[in-house]
Amino acid sequence: MPKDLRRSDCPIHCALNLLGDRWTLVIVRDLLTTSRGTFTELLDSPEGIATNILTSRLVSLQAAGIVEQLPGDKRYLLTEKGLDLAPLLAELMLWSISHEPTVSAPVDIRLYQKNPQQFIEQVKAAARDRRVK
Amino acid sequence: MPKDLRRSDCPIHCALNLLGDRWTLVIVRDLLTTSRGTFTELLDSPEGIATNILTSRLVSLQAAGIVEQLPGDKRYLLTEKGLDLAPLLAELMLWSISHEPTVSAPVDIRLYQKNPQQFIEQVKAAARDRRVK
Repeated sequence: MPKDLRRSDCPIHCALNLLGDRWTLVIVRDLLTTSRGTFTELLDSPEGIATNILTSRLVSLQAAGIVEQLPGDKRYLLTEKGLDLAPLLAELMLWSISHEPTVSAPVDIRLYQKNPQQFIEQVKAAARDRRVK
Repeated sequence: MPKDLRRSDCPIHCALNLLGDRWTLVIVRDLLTTSRGTFTELLDSPEGIATNILTSRLVSLQAAGIVEQLPGDKRYLLTEKGLDLAPLLAELMLWSISHEPTVSAPVDIRLYQKNPQQFIEQVKAAARDRRVK
């Protein structure tokens, strides 16, 4: 995180300096739960993220160690730090589904509600599997 | 949520249109876990939020039904929809503490790790108690 943005040692404030915008967690969502991985594929998300925003967010995500690129691989991949954002995304999804009736609820949210830990491990394992493909 | 910002029905994207900035969840944090409630008290957070940002975020939070004001009470109060952001804040805190070594870790994060549901209920109950004071 850029240190000049930090105004306290509160973990919530510090995390928001990195994640607190409309797009960063949408990119993490795509890397975590879909096969989109290259820059072009990420541009193709349903929300139609703009090229300059995608570029700047990927730079920040790499600098923060949340996303990495491996030699000879055009895809952006989540590191373990990035995979650890899975519970945050699940809670964001759950809150949204509970309180915004017009959003679409993915069927697997029920799996998360039933057994959060198992669901998170499955999502992370699937994302790790895609790394080697 | 302003409908013109919505580009898909993804619950994560929709939630971020409302919560995705550096300040909204800091305000929710204060209302959830501290006795700060009035506009002046919220200005006094350790991060020193700017007056115009606090004003605009409180307007959005009220429009979204996350925060409310009761007749004759200057404080901003979390609604049940707002209280339901507690697990999201806990996960944000947990991720930050796990991966950003320089942030300060509140002692009670261990209670969340040990028994998430009980911890969330306690935090919400304490915030509900402050409503009647």
